[in-house]
Amino acid sequence: MTRILGIDPGSQRTGVGIIDVDATGRVKHVFHAPLNLMAGVAACKGDLPQRLRRLLDGLRAIVEEHRPDEVAIEQVFMAKNADSALKLGQARGAAICAVVMHDLPVHEYGARQVKLALVGKGAADKAQVQHMVGAMLGLTGRLQADAADALAIAITHAHVSASARRLGIDERLAWSRK
Amino acid sequence: MTRILGIDPGSQRTGVGIIDVDATGRVKHVFHAPLNLMAGVAACKGDLPQRLRRLLDGLRAIVEEHRPDEVAIEQVFMAKNADSALKLGQARGAAICAVVMHDLPVHEYGARQVKLALVGKGAADKAQVQHMVGAMLGLTGRLQADAADALAIAITHAHVSASARRLGIDERLAWSRK
Repeated sequence: MTRILGIDPGSQRTGVGIIDVDATGRVKHVFHAPLNLMAGVAACKGDLPQRLRRLLDGLRAIVEEHRPDEVAIEQVFMAKNADSALKLGQARGAAICAVVMHDLPVHEYGARQVKLALVGKGAADKAQVQHMVGAMLGLTGRLQADAADALAIAITHAHVSASARRLGIDERLAWSRK
Repeated sequence: MTRILGIDPGSQRTGVGIIDVDATGRVKHVFHAPLNLMAGVAACKGDLPQRLRRLLDGLRAIVEEHRPDEVAIEQVFMAKNADSALKLGQARGAAICAVVMHDLPVHEYGARQVKLALVGKGAADKAQVQHMVGAMLGLTGRLQADAADALAIAITHAHVSASARRLGIDERLAWSRK
């Protein structure tokens, strides 16, 4: 049994999802939540250090409670513009720091890889991916979007790892898959 | 006496500079170094988690050794493109995490603010700024560029804080100054 933490980093909200995957590739829901980085900072929205600290501390607390073995994070394929890329990069840097501090291996997956793993085609839309997350993990009700994306990334890593094992690929999975 | 840590974050190299400033605003050099995030990872240049961990651990070790009171970091005004903004953002996020973990207050300054503080005009070029850093701190020889930029940001914060004190501005300095 391997426990996987999926992260969908964002500068205002970071999605977190945790699943267990067994040797056959079967997945089971453990935890999901959106980390709201803006909570309580309405008066100083611009205080980036405080937001990053909330992300770092929040993620570390989740790691300490749920003890994942591996981490998967969304790859940023194309940011809208330089300003949003910078904000996203800061959140992503903080998220990666939180998990490498606990010596966890991190892998990144592109949106296409996630869609392929969840829906079976790289051109699926976000709603289909979120629907499949709920169906695969047996969750009822509407999932918060960032948490659903984080679970989708964790499931993607579970599938890629299981395929690699079936194919007898012993080498450690590469950091990045597009 | 206040000890200020200046940081010039970069995805390959992060400049670090530390100065002491006394009540009159006089500055004294304590430490500077470029943190090379690529050292020893030539074979896996793409391993971002490893680079961010090197930045986080390197910066935390410097904080623990030199015990700064306050931190100043370069503001990213306009990144060249979304891809470089993302990389810079990740390094900046890791750098901010390293210092907020030690409860240090962080302030950011734009390039114009740094040039004004060091050279007296917002349109000064980088070489002039680096020359002034050496002159103000009594350093001889050519300074490594990233470390010089980090010292320049620390000096800028020293000047802005001293001016604020002289003007009787009691309130805590804002996080961001452009």
